[in-house]
Amino acid sequence: MTVTDEAAAPGAAALYQQVQQFYARQMQLLDDGRVAEWALTFTEDGVFAANAHPEPAAGRAAITAAAAKATEEYAAKGVQRRHWLGMVSVEPGTRNRVNARCYALVIETPRGGQAAIRVSTLCEDRLVHDGADWLVEHRQVTRDDLV
Amino acid sequence: MTVTDEAAAPGAAALYQQVQQFYARQMQLLDDGRVAEWALTFTEDGVFAANAHPEPAAGRAAITAAAAKATEEYAAKGVQRRHWLGMVSVEPGTRNRVNARCYALVIETPRGGQAAIRVSTLCEDRLVHDGADWLVEHRQVTRDDLV
Amino acid sequence: MTVTDEAAAPGAAALYQQVQQFYARQMQLLDDGRVAEWALTFTEDGVFAANAHPEPAAGRAAITAAAAKATEEYAAKGVQRRHWLGMVSVEPGTRNRVNARCYALVIETPRGGQAAIRVSTLCEDRLVHDGADWLVEHRQVTRDDLV
Repeated sequence: MTVTDEAAAPGAAALYQQVQQFYARQMQLLDDGRVAEWALTFTEDGVFAANAHPEPAAGRAAITAAAAKATEEYAAKGVQRRHWLGMVSVEPGTRNRVNARCYALVIETPRGGQAAIRVSTLCEDRLVHDGADWLVEHRQVTRDDLV
Repeated sequence: MTVTDEAAAPGAAALYQQVQQFYARQMQLLDDGRVAEWALTFTEDGVFAANAHPEPAAGRAAITAAAAKATEEYAAKGVQRRHWLGMVSVEPGTRNRVNARCYALVIETPRGGQAAIRVSTLCEDRLVHDGADWLVEHRQVTRDDLV
Repeated sequence: MTVTDEAAAPGAAALYQQVQQFYARQMQLLDDGRVAEWALTFTEDGVFAANAHPEPAAGRAAITAAAAKATEEYAAKGVQRRHWLGMVSVEPGTRNRVNARCYALVIETPRGGQAAIRVSTLCEDRLVHDGADWLVEHRQVTRDDLV
């Protein structure tokens, strides 16, 4: 997709489906512990900012390192995480970008234990299409408990 | 869209996307405390009925007043609400209307505290398209704990 | 739909919408206790496998019997179940089939009581289109607590 070529731009329904499908795939990769593949859903210079972190992770290497550490900790504890994104609002941006604003829950289940909501957050993304798929260029996650 | 003009009616995929996008925007407005803008997602004579309320709120003024009161109470308590709608089933209705039936959760997070489900509900809407966007003409919310 | 006829295959946006709508309708039937109608959303020889069950339920009769038993137990306890499917990833399969992988939560609310997550699961489906609608040919539900 290049939005410089107007005719190639997806309609609203196609765009919305692409973002939903992207989010599903992205979060399943993370929750499956496939960190290296998950990191490829960010641009090379992507930024992951969160009000739970002192500083944003900038660039794929930093994003990968942070996710790998968290993934190992969950695996060591025997806890299955599930990231649920919902209430997705998509707004077309400039050129081949969209702004997406959604809610995200982290649901945790310890092995042999009780599933529960860990945190409720707001997730604000700027996504860019690189010709093959959508990628996260900038993500801001705001935990509701820390506001 | 005018459904009097049959050719202009959206297909199933477009309709479903429009309802999902509408719900995301509508609930984000409410959870952001933007009550006046949220109220504009109902028709002027819209009805909001709930088994948790003794009587339906009829008309935008009544709907706005009820939502403003709740919003102020949450702000005073320092609690962030998130309305999650999901499992949306959309059925085309007569003319420029659709019937949508979905589940709705209210997730609450106190500042510095633990996110939790407040209530689980069934939400049944009659939506009408006014030429610009979808609006709620009639909403019935049924709390699962009060059935 | 027959995917042997390439022109009749739905695009990605239509396919995704069809699966979302199918899941919404399917789960609403189950949570409404309409077990016989729900069972018709499986193929005649459909299989429902779960890591919570010693053996898969194979065929509509077995699937119906298991669901009817659970439904009666919930009704007797006065508990409303809500199955939430989300983070749906759809991949086109061979001929008139798709593979869908999603997360599923069961939310329970006792009458007069507090809604809570009962279990968090992974749901992996092979769906087949029979010309009229999608049906589940094979479902594998993996509870996160039993892994």
